[in-house]
Amino acid sequence: MSASPPLTREVDVPSGAPARIRTPSVGDPRLARLSLNQRTTAEWSLREALDGAVAAGLPAIGLWREPVQEVGLGTAVELVRDSGLRVSSLCRGGFFTAEDEDQRRRAHDENLRALDEAAALGAPTLVLVPGGLPAGSRDLVGARTRAAEAVARLAPEARARGVVLGIEPMNPLYAADRGVVSTLAQALRIARDFSADEVGVVVDTFHLWWEPEVLQTIRSAGDRIVSYQVCDWITPLPADTLLARGMMGDGHVDFAAFTAAVADAGYRGDVEVEIFHAEVWAAPGADTVATLARRYVELVEPWLGT
Amino acid sequence: MSASPPLTREVDVPSGAPARIRTPSVGDPRLARLSLNQRTTAEWSLREALDGAVAAGLPAIGLWREPVQEVGLGTAVELVRDSGLRVSSLCRGGFFTAEDEDQRRRAHDENLRALDEAAALGAPTLVLVPGGLPAGSRDLVGARTRAAEAVARLAPEARARGVVLGIEPMNPLYAADRGVVSTLAQALRIARDFSADEVGVVVDTFHLWWEPEVLQTIRSAGDRIVSYQVCDWITPLPADTLLARGMMGDGHVDFAAFTAAVADAGYRGDVEVEIFHAEVWAAPGADTVATLARRYVELVEPWLGT
Repeated sequence: MSASPPLTREVDVPSGAPARIRTPSVGDPRLARLSLNQRTTAEWSLREALDGAVAAGLPAIGLWREPVQEVGLGTAVELVRDSGLRVSSLCRGGFFTAEDEDQRRRAHDENLRALDEAAALGAPTLVLVPGGLPAGSRDLVGARTRAAEAVARLAPEARARGVVLGIEPMNPLYAADRGVVSTLAQALRIARDFSADEVGVVVDTFHLWWEPEVLQTIRSAGDRIVSYQVCDWITPLPADTLLARGMMGDGHVDFAAFTAAVADAGYRGDVEVEIFHAEVWAAPGADTVATLARRYVELVEPWLGT
Repeated sequence: MSASPPLTREVDVPSGAPARIRTPSVGDPRLARLSLNQRTTAEWSLREALDGAVAAGLPAIGLWREPVQEVGLGTAVELVRDSGLRVSSLCRGGFFTAEDEDQRRRAHDENLRALDEAAALGAPTLVLVPGGLPAGSRDLVGARTRAAEAVARLAPEARARGVVLGIEPMNPLYAADRGVVSTLAQALRIARDFSADEVGVVVDTFHLWWEPEVLQTIRSAGDRIVSYQVCDWITPLPADTLLARGMMGDGHVDFAAFTAAVADAGYRGDVEVEIFHAEVWAAPGADTVATLARRYVELVEPWLGT
């Protein structure tokens, strides 16, 4: 019924709809800041993810500790170097809200290992997921205090390694079981007790799209923004809320407004696409990467500024 | 294996666990501010809900428009009067975020009818659920602006009827599809453009338990709090997120801290138990009311102050 033929035979993941634009080619300058967060192609090994990103013309990758550890840190460092990709961040440290002091000490030690890995991999930022309420606890105020204290203990260690801690405020959906830092404003209050080369914040559209005044708060964050991660808030929310992060354009997020605010704040780093979605994970990785590259150049990149 | 016999043979809804305390009897002074929100016993008609509340010794009920309209407003007014119960609030007006002006005018007219009903029923407050993003829209800032404008248009109408508008900030879980006002702080910013006898806020533990600094914000709200609604945030979140509101004590909410803050703010009104949960709805209404009365006197009432 269409008056003009489709531009491409490709279809988007996971919607199955025809692609609205051509997939950008390797060398396309619009890809210059696009990073594949490894979890978006969760079925891929580290080597496959590096190869897939390179094949699609992406210049950067956001790594996760588990697939790095699968091959061993030394091998991972070599694979990354051979790929020529930048590492935009390492996910993830944190999980430091335990009430038990021994558990918190163990979490701190684990975070030191994560910082060592980030430094070895050349990741400028270690993303910190604070953790939820300890089992059986209802003391959210206490958990938040312990999260801030844990950041304070890690900050000099991060600085010593040349890695910036990136506090990731998480959608309140996860406040009980994953992340007790719930707004960008709250994350910034914690970060500003430290210098910007020690502690910053992660701006993730899924987590923050609903926050009142968030565009102003982003603009005020300045050099505290150490990572910009994009994916969409989709409804109805999938039954497994950990797999609710959708492909950009499939949901309710205003990527133009968010991205322009991040650019106004002065952020010039990579933009990670981080999607957790059962159907995305079930798709061939190359199709997922092609879709996210299209959606990125359509919905995000035009607003990134210079 | 227990050293002492259980206090009661009753079991809680929906956990099936033995009741921890005896069910308070009719006339128990601890029930003096407990209100049954009608949706908690969704299977009950208006008459059944009134009878059930009276039988359990509750002095108040929170009404919903749909079951009121089922019997007709005049009959509902008579039934409520005959029951001797206070009406703690009427749910719900709002849904005024449409982009289309005609739709917004229709929403306004519908809200006038809701205000008339609230006045006729003796409800001091009409609870306002703002509504989500219009279909296909990603303009959350615009939707929030329209919500505030709609409140401004309704405020003099509410005052003329002796009903206070209660803006209900909703968990960000619902920001896209139900309520674009997401924090108590945001609701208070809207309310404070009006006098306290025109526009107030609803404090609902499910919606607000995660909000940073919420206890301080509650204390600062003073006479703006026109309704206090309790239920719990449970994990894992049920697949249907509209049915995720759990029985107090089954989840992560710190009712002592919340209730003490509401009391410190000076709130002396009724406390509505509003639960949306498939298994609660499937249970016999009387068992649900007995459970919520026990949980209320255990977890909420001790912190209400005088």
